[in-house]
Amino acid sequence: MTAKSEKIVREVLERCDVRIGGDRPFDVQVHDRRLYDRLITQGTLGLGESYTQGWWDCDAIDELVSRLLSVDAASIASLDFSVLWSYLRGSLLNLQRWRPFQVGQQHYDLSNSLYAAMLDRRMIYSCGYWQDAADLDEAQEQKLDLICRKIGLKSGDRVLDIGAGWGGFLRFAAERYGVTGVGVTVSEQQARFAEKNLSGLPVEMKLLDYHKLDGLFDHLVSVGMFEHVGHKNYRAYMQKAHELLADDGLFLLHTIGGNLSQTHGDPWSEKYIFPNGMLPSVRQIGAAIEGLFVMEDWHNFGTHYDRTLLAWHGNFEAAWPELAPAFDDRFRRMWRYYLLSFAGAFRARKMQLWQVVLSKPGVRGGYTRLS
Amino acid sequence: MTAKSEKIVREVLERCDVRIGGDRPFDVQVHDRRLYDRLITQGTLGLGESYTQGWWDCDAIDELVSRLLSVDAASIASLDFSVLWSYLRGSLLNLQRWRPFQVGQQHYDLSNSLYAAMLDRRMIYSCGYWQDAADLDEAQEQKLDLICRKIGLKSGDRVLDIGAGWGGFLRFAAERYGVTGVGVTVSEQQARFAEKNLSGLPVEMKLLDYHKLDGLFDHLVSVGMFEHVGHKNYRAYMQKAHELLADDGLFLLHTIGGNLSQTHGDPWSEKYIFPNGMLPSVRQIGAAIEGLFVMEDWHNFGTHYDRTLLAWHGNFEAAWPELAPAFDDRFRRMWRYYLLSFAGAFRARKMQLWQVVLSKPGVRGGYTRLS
Repeated sequence: MTAKSEKIVREVLERCDVRIGGDRPFDVQVHDRRLYDRLITQGTLGLGESYTQGWWDCDAIDELVSRLLSVDAASIASLDFSVLWSYLRGSLLNLQRWRPFQVGQQHYDLSNSLYAAMLDRRMIYSCGYWQDAADLDEAQEQKLDLICRKIGLKSGDRVLDIGAGWGGFLRFAAERYGVTGVGVTVSEQQARFAEKNLSGLPVEMKLLDYHKLDGLFDHLVSVGMFEHVGHKNYRAYMQKAHELLADDGLFLLHTIGGNLSQTHGDPWSEKYIFPNGMLPSVRQIGAAIEGLFVMEDWHNFGTHYDRTLLAWHGNFEAAWPELAPAFDDRFRRMWRYYLLSFAGAFRARKMQLWQVVLSKPGVRGGYTRLS
Repeated sequence: MTAKSEKIVREVLERCDVRIGGDRPFDVQVHDRRLYDRLITQGTLGLGESYTQGWWDCDAIDELVSRLLSVDAASIASLDFSVLWSYLRGSLLNLQRWRPFQVGQQHYDLSNSLYAAMLDRRMIYSCGYWQDAADLDEAQEQKLDLICRKIGLKSGDRVLDIGAGWGGFLRFAAERYGVTGVGVTVSEQQARFAEKNLSGLPVEMKLLDYHKLDGLFDHLVSVGMFEHVGHKNYRAYMQKAHELLADDGLFLLHTIGGNLSQTHGDPWSEKYIFPNGMLPSVRQIGAAIEGLFVMEDWHNFGTHYDRTLLAWHGNFEAAWPELAPAFDDRFRRMWRYYLLSFAGAFRARKMQLWQVVLSKPGVRGGYTRLS
């Protein structure tokens, strides 16, 4: 089968102007010819796994993936590449944000040092806002400030952060805007870190499933958590958010989005990055909020995630000498593939980054949006 | 039944802080007590018709309607007002933009003078953008300019306007941005007017159903037309738009939206204002664009329609002495009720005004939104 598989793969790559053995950054070096069969039978699961195993190399995986995703699906199908294409499309489209406790138990205890090396100084693990930012620290600060301004935070407001990571948003909002509040996470490592991160501030982190929350908050934010909710729970999530939000409050939902409605994640990322994650579509979010919220604003800055992921990748590779003793080369390749393939998917516009501002009865007099 | 009906209506009004016989602008003066039964049995159809017939009066119908719509549905239901409420809610939520050839045949020939009196100097029959506008002329100019800037119009671009009214957008875009293009309308009166309006400019109006269009355009706009498409045709509309748009073009959809997905219009507005109109929801638009377009931006400025409608109403009442010979008092009341009840529905945030920017494959490098 290898010869036929190779022919198909070469023709797909040719359509993307990618060469096997070429010398441009996005060209592919094949070290093991079993790759071709594997791509045909396993799609992106095989693409990611075989990279981790060292069967192929590419200096610019991000650009390679972007090119693969940008190829016109219809013309591919007419050339009988539909099998490969359906894998490529049905999979990278589904990639979701990685969660620390899912990476693999053997690296669990080292995770905070990995994130500290990779992320900005505030440990914000979601898309930055690069509108006027020169580097990752600034992009994350701008993102946090944009969120605060979009929901009109003012001193004394009580805020809930659903999926609050290491507490970076709550700390920022408490220090800059004088809010009080609560964050929830399902990660023990994050909760422990956040306890120190937020000490002395009137904000606290709880190790808790958001379903178990009660109370009433002036405003809600949820940044990079909705990707883990799962399509069967979108409605329940919105019902819970509705229940927790004051009538005159705003809910800012920050999430990766997909162009197509999906009911499952990608095989590779489910296996190696995060199980049960999936990207919502406009239709799915529309259905989930219907009758609960007025949609006040929907901002798409997905290409900012391309830059964010490249910055994370740069930090990761730069920190590798210090990280290496605790990891292995297989992990390094897997991690690089994850960051760069996601960047490529955002660049190809197959994944979006949405900030949706929701209000319960509609803001009286109207909501004036910010960018 | 009248006594029981009156009791129910009075209790609903009390919840809205509206009094029968009160002296505040939004209080109601009842001239015919048959009104109560009619409201219970006919809902908003009865509300609108009975106003036209002179059974009741109110100095501020807009504020009355806003208050009726802002009452909490659940608490109403628990008081057994569900019948009335379901009418109020299920109807005003569905109101759609009026179309000239549907007002009634007897006034058809006079329509252009009616619009000329009511609208701004460019005859723009859709929501203005009041961000920095002092009056209706400025609000409409700002709206037109916002659309041009959102799709990045430049000299020489070929633009299609689906539902182009009297040609106001095309004229503005041709004069200010140097575009060429085509507009379509299904109104003969509009097409005739537009011919003069656009003379000497490289833009033309066609009397044509958009389904029959072909060709390829650099950019598409559709302003206040999608309300007439009907939920069964949303997908076909988007497929047609996709077919007509260049791969690197943008499509700006400007439409009234509803908070709930609907499959039919409101009884009163269907009978008196426009048959077969209905408001799309986020979910319905999301479903219609899926796999065809990337949603680049979704702007909601529904409360600007409140101001726009009040401006139209002010112009209409001011022009009444000149219009009166061609119309009758019944028309005047119907028209006033239409403009002010719509204004109230926007004020209550039951209707939205959306500008959605769509691209086919996603703008390379990202779309930077404007407000």
